[in-house]
Amino acid sequence: MNQVSTYKSIEWKEDRLVLLDQRVLPREISYIEYKHHEDVAKAIKDMVVRGAPAIGATAAYGLVLATREKATKELSELRNYLSKAAELLQAARPTAVNLFWAIDRVIKKAHEDSIKTVEDLKKVVLNEAHQIAEEDIEMNKKIGLNALPLCSEKVTFIHHCNTGALATVDYGTALGIIRTAHEHGRDVFVYVDETRPRLQGARLTSWELKQLGIKHKVIVDGASGYFMATGKVDLVTVGADRIARNGDTANKIGTYNLAIVAKAHDVPFYVAAPTSTIDLSIANGKEIKIEERSAEEITTILGQQITPDDVNVANPAFDVTPAKYITGIITEMGIARPPYEKSLTEMVERAENERKK
Amino acid sequence: MNQVSTYKSIEWKEDRLVLLDQRVLPREISYIEYKHHEDVAKAIKDMVVRGAPAIGATAAYGLVLATREKATKELSELRNYLSKAAELLQAARPTAVNLFWAIDRVIKKAHEDSIKTVEDLKKVVLNEAHQIAEEDIEMNKKIGLNALPLCSEKVTFIHHCNTGALATVDYGTALGIIRTAHEHGRDVFVYVDETRPRLQGARLTSWELKQLGIKHKVIVDGASGYFMATGKVDLVTVGADRIARNGDTANKIGTYNLAIVAKAHDVPFYVAAPTSTIDLSIANGKEIKIEERSAEEITTILGQQITPDDVNVANPAFDVTPAKYITGIITEMGIARPPYEKSLTEMVERAENERKK
Repeated sequence: MNQVSTYKSIEWKEDRLVLLDQRVLPREISYIEYKHHEDVAKAIKDMVVRGAPAIGATAAYGLVLATREKATKELSELRNYLSKAAELLQAARPTAVNLFWAIDRVIKKAHEDSIKTVEDLKKVVLNEAHQIAEEDIEMNKKIGLNALPLCSEKVTFIHHCNTGALATVDYGTALGIIRTAHEHGRDVFVYVDETRPRLQGARLTSWELKQLGIKHKVIVDGASGYFMATGKVDLVTVGADRIARNGDTANKIGTYNLAIVAKAHDVPFYVAAPTSTIDLSIANGKEIKIEERSAEEITTILGQQITPDDVNVANPAFDVTPAKYITGIITEMGIARPPYEKSLTEMVERAENERKK
Repeated sequence: MNQVSTYKSIEWKEDRLVLLDQRVLPREISYIEYKHHEDVAKAIKDMVVRGAPAIGATAAYGLVLATREKATKELSELRNYLSKAAELLQAARPTAVNLFWAIDRVIKKAHEDSIKTVEDLKKVVLNEAHQIAEEDIEMNKKIGLNALPLCSEKVTFIHHCNTGALATVDYGTALGIIRTAHEHGRDVFVYVDETRPRLQGARLTSWELKQLGIKHKVIVDGASGYFMATGKVDLVTVGADRIARNGDTANKIGTYNLAIVAKAHDVPFYVAAPTSTIDLSIANGKEIKIEERSAEEITTILGQQITPDDVNVANPAFDVTPAKYITGIITEMGIARPPYEKSLTEMVERAENERKK
């Protein structure tokens, strides 16, 4: 894989998948090796790997492992096995559409008529997984370049969750925009939402920004309005887990509050995601299933309990930001503007045509 | 003191002040005794005790300790000593006006002509501190009753930070409203903002609500919009650290975001505070000094570091919610409505007249 960061969220090594364990960053740099797709599904569920594009690519490699687990010479038997593996991987997390998109793409390839043997199938699946990973990096770099005209010489962002190299195969989406601006000589500063409950901002985004040499300060999620009120924030950039046809966007919990607060301050609010995050099959955000995660994510931090015993908790992992709060959606194909139904549909068609070339 | 909860945030015992250590709740119920005003100032600074009304009463008792520390028969010498103690206590935290209000009130009393001896002075100061504490509880109960007409038979709140018995001498302000509704048979449910960085919601409010038998769920601060979008939230209630003449309100960081999000959902947003929190001397929120607290409040939780080493942090402890986001300000005198300059000024005058009676 063509990677550009010093750390690799996802790496295929000969016969196994290697994931950087994002649960223990930044205090521990630990890589875990996977040789079975069931373990990969669990890694996605447990958030060893997270970020919509990253879990898409991870699932694709999970399918590569599935093709190698099964000792058979029967193509149809291996295809059946692969389909079951796909079902398991799809069930790992419900909200990010990239997971389904990547699996569909691999499964479709695995059923092409040109495949005659199990060896063919193994090769095709590995090749498609590599393709997905490679494309992800290229798309992210394009997203960054497409957003560059939005960044003035001195530009201050608020960024939510983590959308960097860790959330993707490499480079990042919303954080890729920040990175591109920095690489193009802009004077960049980032207010980093810590992003409770799992603290992806405090733990992961600050860690990435530090290595990139980009100035930043970590803030609590509730402080974004305070800093916008100072007039010093130029742009809010976030990633996406699923974008509906009308532009409604599911992303990490707290994104919706941030979007409302940005609008109240006339701060442009941009979503950055590859076109694979756009789900034209759903009309709007009401159709997006929101994952409810365990209470422990809120009641304990680093294994220590912070709340009283047996406290009740509600822990939706994502929220949906209605399209009306979104200034633009930046993909590898350009910046989609309202009305999104038209611009997103056109953008996805263009992306598909380009891929077919 | 006339207290109604099973735990006491602040208690005067014969010759010493006893504070419930709110830094270690709920995992530890620990009371600390104070015999010197300098230690009381440090307790306020370190947030052993917090909440605007609670730190006001605590400072008053700090002055009681000051009158007892100094071995002198000279009234003027003791008054000088008291004034220095007042300065130290005032410097403990800059934002909550109740601290200044309570100290001013005690110091004014300490200079009354009727005081002839140091023994008189000691008595008067102790009496005034008791008075402030007693009044606080009574005012909170009135706030609760004044807000009762806003609560329907089944009522769901979002609550930020902690404004309960722990944040006051007893009973609470915004949480007192919730408590009153519950005591009057309303079917009450509370979404409890965990309130980063110090987690007063997750640690303290949930602990109080549990003991009161009030249904609740802890949520991350970024999730308030998610729950408002479900249509299930009727009211947002928060406390205040300082209210300017025009109604702009300083309160715990995250309050401003919550107010903006409430307005976007047409959810009424009420501030609850005794009239002692209203600072008519300042025209608007721009004049309120916002305390910046240590980076460690964000970078570590229960002593464990969550961020990379040497990360930069911005940690304003409060924000200012402009009056336009506030549906009403509920005090012991009633509910002030916009325009606040008129309603708050009138309310403070009425409160002062009542006190003089």
